[in-house]
Amino acid sequence: MAVRADLNVSLDGFATTTDQTPENPFGDDWGRLVAAYVSTRTFRARVLGDSSGEGTTGLDEDYAAAYFEEVGAEIMGAGMFGLHEHGDEPDWKGWWGDEPPFHVPVFVLTHTARPSIEFANGTVFHFVEATPGEALAKATAVAGDGDVRIGGGVDVVRQFLRAGLIDRMHLAVAPLVIGSGERIWDGLRGLENDYAVRNEVAESGVTHATFTRR
Amino acid sequence: MAVRADLNVSLDGFATTTDQTPENPFGDDWGRLVAAYVSTRTFRARVLGDSSGEGTTGLDEDYAAAYFEEVGAEIMGAGMFGLHEHGDEPDWKGWWGDEPPFHVPVFVLTHTARPSIEFANGTVFHFVEATPGEALAKATAVAGDGDVRIGGGVDVVRQFLRAGLIDRMHLAVAPLVIGSGERIWDGLRGLENDYAVRNEVAESGVTHATFTRR
Repeated sequence: MAVRADLNVSLDGFATTTDQTPENPFGDDWGRLVAAYVSTRTFRARVLGDSSGEGTTGLDEDYAAAYFEEVGAEIMGAGMFGLHEHGDEPDWKGWWGDEPPFHVPVFVLTHTARPSIEFANGTVFHFVEATPGEALAKATAVAGDGDVRIGGGVDVVRQFLRAGLIDRMHLAVAPLVIGSGERIWDGLRGLENDYAVRNEVAESGVTHATFTRR
Repeated sequence: MAVRADLNVSLDGFATTTDQTPENPFGDDWGRLVAAYVSTRTFRARVLGDSSGEGTTGLDEDYAAAYFEEVGAEIMGAGMFGLHEHGDEPDWKGWWGDEPPFHVPVFVLTHTARPSIEFANGTVFHFVEATPGEALAKATAVAGDGDVRIGGGVDVVRQFLRAGLIDRMHLAVAPLVIGSGERIWDGLRGLENDYAVRNEVAESGVTHATFTRR
């Protein structure tokens, strides 16, 4: 059992984007940031439900496949679930429609109680007010032999890193300079003292950096 | 003839360090940032004058050797030459002693006139008040068939990037999170639109990113 995080970041370390407008509610940067990941065979099959078997292979695909392996529970922030925009809507079920790609219990960190939401595919969202350590204890209790993933956003991953609770972090670094947003590195000076860093470069130009706790 | 820049940066993009103290005037971060580079055979021979032939080989050495190839002139900021600390000293000749490792004309950008300094090994420091374009014209005029290197610091490299004057930038990204200093990425949103990015990972863990103008 390990505690893992995976993020897509730009060269300048941004994992959130700020170019959204009312006319273009996702902005262009997010698509550019995750382009290599969403092109993989695993993402297309697992997230888009594309059964054609199409999609890229190679290193990006290896990391995408590993992304979904052996995860027994997930923890995410309120923002990643959409509560900052949709917290007032009692029927809000997240961004993922009727087939959220998690297939495991997901603990959403929030200060506002909400009833759990269960999907037929095994995804169950639980809403908890908890410290990182408390949330991790809940997730570990239901993860079985699986890993616990700290899904995001960036601020949540940084909180768990600072609390020393993450065993392995994978950053897919896209060759883009985004310039603003929320940066993975802030407040993490000396991270390399606690984690060994390994880099691999994919055919797409994305560098996959894996931080493994020493 | 190309205009080139080479910098050593941390994962979070810092190419200057801020942990200097009166007791430790270089700080620890700088040494960690350039550790792989200063271990190479080329650096030891070319900068330290070590004729033993010792030093690392592999990708770090390939980039170190390329660093010194075909440079016909260099441009650097006043800070890199040491004028921020030593500008009041008429005899200041830079940090490099009697054998500066440049061996070519070097144009130091400063608002204060100083006489040129010539060394037996071909290094000549000229002090010029000039825009990036004006400085580049001076350097190009004396570089012959060689490249012009924009040596640093980070602010000077960014000025030349923003002016569209750099053909190729090589960043040696060390697996460190430094947390503060001067960041290469600031103000360069969209750099990937003008430059193709290629990454290679060295045995040391350093990722070499090369930006080539499209």
